[in-house]
Amino acid sequence: MLRVNGERLWQSLMDMATIGATEKGGCNRQALTDEDGRGRALFIQWCKEAGCQVRVDQMGNIFVRRPGTDATAPAVITGSHLDTQPTGGRFDGVYGVLAGLEVIRSLNDQQIETRHSLEVVVWTNEEGVRFSPAMIGSGVWCGEFDLDYGWSRTDKQGVNIKQALAQQGYLGEHPCQPSSVKAAFELHIEQGPILEREQQQIGVVKGVQGMRWYDLTITGVPIHAGPTPMEQRQDPFMGLADIIRQLYQLAKSLAPLARVTFGDIKALPGSRNTVPEQLVLAIDLRHPDQARLTKMDAELRKISADVCQSYGLSADIHDEWNSPAVAFDEHCVEAVRAAVTEHGYSHLEMFSGAGHDSVYVSRVVPTSMIFIPCEKGISHNEAENITVEDAIAGCNVLLGAMLNSASRVDS
Amino acid sequence: MLRVNGERLWQSLMDMATIGATEKGGCNRQALTDEDGRGRALFIQWCKEAGCQVRVDQMGNIFVRRPGTDATAPAVITGSHLDTQPTGGRFDGVYGVLAGLEVIRSLNDQQIETRHSLEVVVWTNEEGVRFSPAMIGSGVWCGEFDLDYGWSRTDKQGVNIKQALAQQGYLGEHPCQPSSVKAAFELHIEQGPILEREQQQIGVVKGVQGMRWYDLTITGVPIHAGPTPMEQRQDPFMGLADIIRQLYQLAKSLAPLARVTFGDIKALPGSRNTVPEQLVLAIDLRHPDQARLTKMDAELRKISADVCQSYGLSADIHDEWNSPAVAFDEHCVEAVRAAVTEHGYSHLEMFSGAGHDSVYVSRVVPTSMIFIPCEKGISHNEAENITVEDAIAGCNVLLGAMLNSASRVDS
Repeated sequence: MLRVNGERLWQSLMDMATIGATEKGGCNRQALTDEDGRGRALFIQWCKEAGCQVRVDQMGNIFVRRPGTDATAPAVITGSHLDTQPTGGRFDGVYGVLAGLEVIRSLNDQQIETRHSLEVVVWTNEEGVRFSPAMIGSGVWCGEFDLDYGWSRTDKQGVNIKQALAQQGYLGEHPCQPSSVKAAFELHIEQGPILEREQQQIGVVKGVQGMRWYDLTITGVPIHAGPTPMEQRQDPFMGLADIIRQLYQLAKSLAPLARVTFGDIKALPGSRNTVPEQLVLAIDLRHPDQARLTKMDAELRKISADVCQSYGLSADIHDEWNSPAVAFDEHCVEAVRAAVTEHGYSHLEMFSGAGHDSVYVSRVVPTSMIFIPCEKGISHNEAENITVEDAIAGCNVLLGAMLNSASRVDS
Repeated sequence: MLRVNGERLWQSLMDMATIGATEKGGCNRQALTDEDGRGRALFIQWCKEAGCQVRVDQMGNIFVRRPGTDATAPAVITGSHLDTQPTGGRFDGVYGVLAGLEVIRSLNDQQIETRHSLEVVVWTNEEGVRFSPAMIGSGVWCGEFDLDYGWSRTDKQGVNIKQALAQQGYLGEHPCQPSSVKAAFELHIEQGPILEREQQQIGVVKGVQGMRWYDLTITGVPIHAGPTPMEQRQDPFMGLADIIRQLYQLAKSLAPLARVTFGDIKALPGSRNTVPEQLVLAIDLRHPDQARLTKMDAELRKISADVCQSYGLSADIHDEWNSPAVAFDEHCVEAVRAAVTEHGYSHLEMFSGAGHDSVYVSRVVPTSMIFIPCEKGISHNEAENITVEDAIAGCNVLLGAMLNSASRVDS
């Protein structure tokens, strides 16, 4: 049973974390800044030392290749991102990239060849902090956005991605599109509390939650708090309480995978002694099963309309965002599951609650993901942390899954 | 049965409404501005023409006296205010003042004398728009605030009330305190929808709702909407829905006089895909019976604590304001009731939902109020409106109540 060199993996993570290191122990390597450039350069240096071929595409995505024995066989790829949030952690993204490198280094150490080539990818601007939207590198690659759109995204200083790529020397010539890929894996920290709470070491990720964002506006009749009897009011708060309660019940009826979140609310005019004319409620519905998410959407509309009608209110639902559920490729999930089983790691079959490059990649290439626990579920934060043991376990699973897909050549 | 001169009353209202008239048919006579000064001057001119004595106290409150036959008998007073909101109406306050004048004019016309002197009062800065707090003139008079506090209130330009009084010529020398008052009546538009909806012409006002204002802060644990299972959340919205529902049930259990109003709400941090750390809810509880209001206060605290505990949340209640319920003097209410009965007007015994000078006056002098309907309950608005018939009816009741109290002397 093959194992990676855990000490070397951890040392790479710590070395990379010195670039853009923050005082509180996190990292600030926003996309295509000098820090990101230095991180990319260090990574490429390591890859070349490991004997890999490096190519950069038009969106600055870096592909590092360890050739297989069959030059015509499609590649097995793994990747994530090196850019971070402004007060980001040391592991979000970078862990997946450096684990991919460690897979190659370990295979080199043990002189193991694969029929399919292996590639490690660094996707550009995953975080979406300097340039919006997020995941623009993988998004262009999979055809979600066209290249001109990707290039034209600008930061707050008016610098666009094409200019920033040229500035950092990453405006590559290779077409930003998939060519001959058999399977893709992404190893990532969970960015949530489930594995830690369940005391499981590996998350076998079967897909990504679908999510829909709404603004629900409940409109009533503004009126003075004093003189108006309760039964003569058309009070948006009366509708609100019932709608919230029924939507939580809906989540319960679809437990444990449904999520209903109210992140924000505003009252208009928001005067202490006046029944509000309007309440605007931000609603976030999620489910990994698209059919169930569609049912939740329909229920939201029915509940809002029915409750509001019963109180003489009106409900208006504005669709803010619709990200369909992603079901990862069964063969890729099975390759991960087999690797986990081989090592005997405790594990949980689960869905990702956050977006990742793999959401886009999975549209054009068979894909799955591997999670490891992160401390208290904290991410996008300088306090982000993982254990060395979990880091190694995740990397061993990635190695196993890639070998399962890339066909080890026994020499 | 004595009746006032309705045509003259209405003409006075329309004449006064030309001072500070707004384009949309309302009035802008904010306290101690030039417009308010012109309104006061016109009123005093009319009172002098009616043979009255005029005195002004240290807070600029104007007392207009029609002497009774017994110089030692305490006065029966009526009054309200001439100042308005910036986009105020033509009747809020001014109706009560000019109706008082019409009572005197009518008694003059009919050469009726009373044993007790009659006085019409104009209270300074009732609205609280230019100078805060509201009802400062009656507040100092009744001892709620001391004179220096009253004088020191400043507007946004830094002008204080003492300076503004001097500017307009209303820094009087008479002590701002009650002296020898038998009873006080205030005639006012309802500023609410009840009389109109119930199709009743006169409100016999038995008191003023007590009201308590709070900010309830519900604190949970902010966490990402995606990965966190519903049952692992400490979500302030879960507590909110239950608290709102239980407080509405509380209002129902104390119907029809209890009022529960949520006028504003904020979510912190207010991010669409994050369970909020905190919700801050503005709560307004009202009841005309102080014991019941105190019970509502206790229930609010218990419900908030119990609900929050059940969801792993914490509840913090900040007291914003506490205005105890006012029960008007039974003899004054009876004087009004008798006048209504004499005229056969349709009427409702009710409580005021808004604050008035009479709240303060009632602390030192036997007091009650009379309401007439206002169109759609709209007030503090240029669209504020009343019918001529209701205006006359209210004034007839005021005349009757004052005569009942002031002992008509049949000559």
